[in-house]
Amino acid sequence: MRLATYQARRDTALGVIVDDRLVDLRALARRRKTSVPDNMIELIEAVPTTTLVRLLREAATWVKAGRTSVPLSRVKLLAPIPRPRKNIFCVGRNYAEHARESGAAPPEVPVYFTKPPTTVIGPLAPILYHRATQQLDYEVELAVVIGKRGRDIPAAKALDYVFGYTIMNDITARDLQRRHGQWFKGKALDTFAPLGPWIVHRAAVPNPAELLHVEDVVHCGAVDRDAV
Amino acid sequence: MRLATYQARRDTALGVIVDDRLVDLRALARRRKTSVPDNMIELIEAVPTTTLVRLLREAATWVKAGRTSVPLSRVKLLAPIPRPRKNIFCVGRNYAEHARESGAAPPEVPVYFTKPPTTVIGPLAPILYHRATQQLDYEVELAVVIGKRGRDIPAAKALDYVFGYTIMNDITARDLQRRHGQWFKGKALDTFAPLGPWIVHRAAVPNPAELLHVEDVVHCGAVDRDAV
Repeated sequence: MRLATYQARRDTALGVIVDDRLVDLRALARRRKTSVPDNMIELIEAVPTTTLVRLLREAATWVKAGRTSVPLSRVKLLAPIPRPRKNIFCVGRNYAEHARESGAAPPEVPVYFTKPPTTVIGPLAPILYHRATQQLDYEVELAVVIGKRGRDIPAAKALDYVFGYTIMNDITARDLQRRHGQWFKGKALDTFAPLGPWIVHRAAVPNPAELLHVEDVVHCGAVDRDAV
Repeated sequence: MRLATYQARRDTALGVIVDDRLVDLRALARRRKTSVPDNMIELIEAVPTTTLVRLLREAATWVKAGRTSVPLSRVKLLAPIPRPRKNIFCVGRNYAEHARESGAAPPEVPVYFTKPPTTVIGPLAPILYHRATQQLDYEVELAVVIGKRGRDIPAAKALDYVFGYTIMNDITARDLQRRHGQWFKGKALDTFAPLGPWIVHRAAVPNPAELLHVEDVVHCGAVDRDAV
């Protein structure tokens, strides 16, 4: 259930990851006598969930049957969405315990900040140490890929709008973040959002809170239910 | 030298404003045996400045000659760029005197904030009074349309990257701006950036500081040279 964008010969293409191999999504679709777009945004928009989930599930059988796939070590993975349509929306101080660590009381409402589409790079692409900063920092974040439009969505329906989940490295120039008053400048420089390596479709994630586990242990030392 | 995006029968189109009339840009180009894109982003990207400026200058002659044009009163103007490619970058507390008025010292460095592409609406389109706020506010802003890519641009070359100028109404939900710590949430709701009515090409603006005059008088009571 892992979808990636990868560098094909001249263009980018979509692939499904099975263990340590990648299957081209178009090849999978062709066998099903259907067709799919070759970029993630159009895929999310145009392909019905049931069709997509069926294709994703078939990838495992495809690899077992020895059909064409490539070892991941020979594939260049790009950001699953190389250029998001709008800026990335982020929630800061999102762990009660992390907030206390940094001396601040946990916020009563979420603190939102944002990163422009131009911050996005591939999961292993180089991060620029811009001249404007002397103090780069990083934080691993769970990234939620929104799959459809909506506004004023009731909490109980929120997950219906999710396409899947990936990982973002939230790079910050701490000196700029402090100096410029608002966080935006220090969060917004080019290459400040390595994304990926892939999107896990939400059909594979019945309980999204579990995705926070790794971050909790490695980064925050807090438990899931502590997420604000 | 005023370029607009307007609602044509089924699609949007580009026009040149001459006094109180609009000339279709494609018609102008056709007469010159050239062709132009029908949306502003592609126009900015694809048409060389000299070609564009020549077309813009010819619009006046075109109207005087009685060739096809439409009274502005019969045209529905849209935002000159209905959907920017990335979020809008804004500078806050940008008037020394305005900063003092609000009790804060003028900032030593610019305070940047941002509005997502989904905030943009036409210059006269309705602004939503979202349920989440009880306190809408507005500020007129000079908006600079960037015409080419760049990074770490020396101040002396900055104007080379400008395509033109327009006006933005910076709508803010003041209660959300305060409550959420960062300004982003209160600045970012749908319809919070009415834009336009048109872009004035930079060829017509030898001294951009003069564009601040109206804002100064009406909104801030400060003089041009006070802009940080």
